[in-house]
Amino acid sequence: MTKRVGLAKAMEMVRGRSIVGGRAVSTQPSAAVFRALDPSTGRDIDRGYQAASESDIEEACEQAWDAFHDLCKVTCQERARLLDRIAGAINDLGQALIEVGVRETGLSAARLRAERDRTTSTLALFARAAGEGSWVRASIDRGDTSRRPFPKADIRSMLRPLGPVAVFGTCGFPLASSSAGGDVASALAAGCPAVVKGHPMHPGVGELVARAVCDAVEQTGMHPGAYSFLHAGGAHDHEVGRRLVVHPSIRAVGFTGSTRGGIALADLAREGRDDPIPVFAQMGSTNPVFLLPGALEKDAERIGERIAGSLSNSVGQMCTCPGLIFVVRGDSSERFARSVASKLREKMPETMVGRRTGDEYARRLRAVSDIPGVSVRGGSVPEGRGAQDDRERPAVGAPCLFTTKLRTFLHTPALHAETFGASAVIVECDRFEDLEDGASAVMGSLTGTVWHARGEEALVGRLVEILERRVGRIVFNGAPTGVEVCASMMHGGPYPSGTMPSTTGAGPQAIERWARRVCYQDAPEGVLPAELHDANPLKIRRVVDGRAGVDAA
Amino acid sequence: MTKRVGLAKAMEMVRGRSIVGGRAVSTQPSAAVFRALDPSTGRDIDRGYQAASESDIEEACEQAWDAFHDLCKVTCQERARLLDRIAGAINDLGQALIEVGVRETGLSAARLRAERDRTTSTLALFARAAGEGSWVRASIDRGDTSRRPFPKADIRSMLRPLGPVAVFGTCGFPLASSSAGGDVASALAAGCPAVVKGHPMHPGVGELVARAVCDAVEQTGMHPGAYSFLHAGGAHDHEVGRRLVVHPSIRAVGFTGSTRGGIALADLAREGRDDPIPVFAQMGSTNPVFLLPGALEKDAERIGERIAGSLSNSVGQMCTCPGLIFVVRGDSSERFARSVASKLREKMPETMVGRRTGDEYARRLRAVSDIPGVSVRGGSVPEGRGAQDDRERPAVGAPCLFTTKLRTFLHTPALHAETFGASAVIVECDRFEDLEDGASAVMGSLTGTVWHARGEEALVGRLVEILERRVGRIVFNGAPTGVEVCASMMHGGPYPSGTMPSTTGAGPQAIERWARRVCYQDAPEGVLPAELHDANPLKIRRVVDGRAGVDAA
Repeated sequence: MTKRVGLAKAMEMVRGRSIVGGRAVSTQPSAAVFRALDPSTGRDIDRGYQAASESDIEEACEQAWDAFHDLCKVTCQERARLLDRIAGAINDLGQALIEVGVRETGLSAARLRAERDRTTSTLALFARAAGEGSWVRASIDRGDTSRRPFPKADIRSMLRPLGPVAVFGTCGFPLASSSAGGDVASALAAGCPAVVKGHPMHPGVGELVARAVCDAVEQTGMHPGAYSFLHAGGAHDHEVGRRLVVHPSIRAVGFTGSTRGGIALADLAREGRDDPIPVFAQMGSTNPVFLLPGALEKDAERIGERIAGSLSNSVGQMCTCPGLIFVVRGDSSERFARSVASKLREKMPETMVGRRTGDEYARRLRAVSDIPGVSVRGGSVPEGRGAQDDRERPAVGAPCLFTTKLRTFLHTPALHAETFGASAVIVECDRFEDLEDGASAVMGSLTGTVWHARGEEALVGRLVEILERRVGRIVFNGAPTGVEVCASMMHGGPYPSGTMPSTTGAGPQAIERWARRVCYQDAPEGVLPAELHDANPLKIRRVVDGRAGVDAA
Repeated sequence: MTKRVGLAKAMEMVRGRSIVGGRAVSTQPSAAVFRALDPSTGRDIDRGYQAASESDIEEACEQAWDAFHDLCKVTCQERARLLDRIAGAINDLGQALIEVGVRETGLSAARLRAERDRTTSTLALFARAAGEGSWVRASIDRGDTSRRPFPKADIRSMLRPLGPVAVFGTCGFPLASSSAGGDVASALAAGCPAVVKGHPMHPGVGELVARAVCDAVEQTGMHPGAYSFLHAGGAHDHEVGRRLVVHPSIRAVGFTGSTRGGIALADLAREGRDDPIPVFAQMGSTNPVFLLPGALEKDAERIGERIAGSLSNSVGQMCTCPGLIFVVRGDSSERFARSVASKLREKMPETMVGRRTGDEYARRLRAVSDIPGVSVRGGSVPEGRGAQDDRERPAVGAPCLFTTKLRTFLHTPALHAETFGASAVIVECDRFEDLEDGASAVMGSLTGTVWHARGEEALVGRLVEILERRVGRIVFNGAPTGVEVCASMMHGGPYPSGTMPSTTGAGPQAIERWARRVCYQDAPEGVLPAELHDANPLKIRRVVDGRAGVDAA
């Protein structure tokens, strides 16, 4: 396996500069420098990063536009090779990447290794999808010049890449959703160059991975503009993002983060440009859980342990952590609450990914506990801090469990929003029908979960009918965390959990976000992409004259 | 065939009232009454229509929400039967529908009959797609409890209907894009109830067709809330639309019309609601045409006739009429321009669908002719009128052909917008490369057309590469009007021609607009839709464990 390196040696690999078109941009004496924080100590890490300048951004976007023309033309096997090579180059970073990551994010080495493996397997998944090629949904309707009264034109269409994509690094997923995460991998698979805005909380990890991507771009002979990485932080954080989103060469945006942040980008992409572009934002999600009486009766303790584990996974810094738990009040719901609280008590306060994240979590816990009718059932609410100890303090978060009544929940909009951190609210209902009212009231979410026992199928059916309109994925007798990456996965949901609820951010169908159907009428075969040639040289699945299969036209 | 009826008798069938949940709403003495115009005379038609009241809208949306739960549960064959029955009921209206249509729109009886046939064949197409069932893109990944380190969950997903859809009737397509047009047909096929806002220019046609739809809903035993029709006009036109778009039960919007109108609805659907909903708007499109030198050299006259026919089709009141024609200046481009102008001269001024449409067309022609560097090459620009003859005047439009130079085009934003009416601008370029500059400058459009001759393939390839980023459909050696309805059709384009450039408004894939992928994790089979049952009872195409086919799981 990978050999251990010292942290100091690992940090030496980081140069603190953006990478545009395969090269680190040159140091500018006047550049705005920012530093990342070690969240476990609250101290700045001794390494300055230069935020990308206006001309860096301009050059990255222009090079991406140039590269787009090349990337459209390379074969799908070449795109697959690029993605596989990126995965290899990330693995080659070995322990250095993990050590820098632990330092910058406070996540454990085990968690970061798991996230890295998920990232490389996602790259491999998109490599397979790109190389296989059927994702373009090619469709051919052959012409018929003898048709009356009008001859029938030859109509062919397939998904074609949108153009350069701006991807925003994510605080909670320094590997799986940043420099070479799912958005970048799926964009490159589609044939779209990526320009990444690094997240200021983990610039070292971002830069190391970006370097790996650029090496892979070079090794596979791709146009160097296919990938650029822009450092952003300090006073220039928003400015780098803003310039990217309004740049004419950028044709779509990928973002994972807060609802406020995602909506701001979507507004900018619409109002800040002559030509609005799509923003695929995955945002705040409450991931409601519904525990049916039979399930609780039988299994309250086990369900409690499972839910406690899911909500406190990575200090609750996962987009699918359950935040609302609806129960019918009774002895078994009491056993359930006790089980969750006791499991959470075993957890020590843990480091969160950044000071801002930790502070916002603490603020949110205080706000929830201040709501009349809400009680703390497990864990504790941190005291408010004075402004004087605002530095050099570890960013920690501890789990906290609240309870309230359905009536309070229904009338308190603040309870309907996501808490980013290891916290959930148990909403107590009087009868099963109240669970339906609760389900009808939750806001759009990535997931909804139903625990049920044998004999409760009719009740489950009624809940599912409601949840189908509000969430992207319905989980039965399980936990919503742990997104299985497979063809059937749907990772996305209605507002406010996403801006594009008909698309998924995980699984091979995520490629489709970066493409748009283009139709060719009576085109000479020479100008058609190979996917639409009569002979079907790529042997992809197509629909020909309305029939699906791997056919020649 | 259908027997002829008198216009008076046909008009008697129209009651002037909205239809909510299968019943004409009762007359309200205080209701706001509006009248339609006979555009061929400019006189009001002697028939009052009551604009839908606030409570009519409320009831239509509430009934649609109730019906949604039923419509989700009926089999896909039942939905197919409903669509086929609607087509039958529209045919049953016979000549009465055509006569009312001619009176209200000024379109010819032949054109309206063709549009009716297109409407019924679209209903039949969506009936087949709904009945066949594979459009839901079902996908199954079976679980594996023995997988290590974590067992693999059973993940299944498919497209599920969004909920009630608001559809706006369209001025230029009283049948194909109004009460039972493509948006309504595809929404019902998906399982979404439709609430239609009638267009004030053709309320009689709208109501007659709506009645036919309601009859079909009743005859097939569907929930009466599955379809409602709301009259809107006069001072209440915008208000009915606004209330519909912000109603909590409405989950998506379909619109065809001006860019201004579509953007206003999209803004309202985002800012006027707690939960933004998607607006599928098809808007203004310039449909640029590029004539390569070889093609013009060989065929200038024939191409001229073809383009002249396409741009003046239905007085240019088609979303795909060509509005910009790029040529390399020379003898053959001169022959082409002469051919278009001469063909257009044969056209008499024709009735446009409404006075507002005719006035806006005339205003636009005056504005274009006032641009320095633009000349009138064929047809004529109507004189401005005083306010005093603002009534009782037929709404007519005559073709008009302009020419300008590329330089003028590039620097004049006003020339980049759609002219709704039988007009086009020939943009003269000096060299082939200028055609590329022109293509790079056009705004998003439904179509782009390239005429080429043998030996010009390389030039065509360069143009296509540019056009792929700007239009939905690229036509070769043909006319952009005449949208073939087939599986491969793409009828939609980037902004400003549409709000959702990755979706099509024509062809079977239009159903997907009204649905969203929902994923079920470890679900008991009893709560799953039949499309996801192991045995594949509907025999649809699915992807099972990543492999496509008609398989049992």
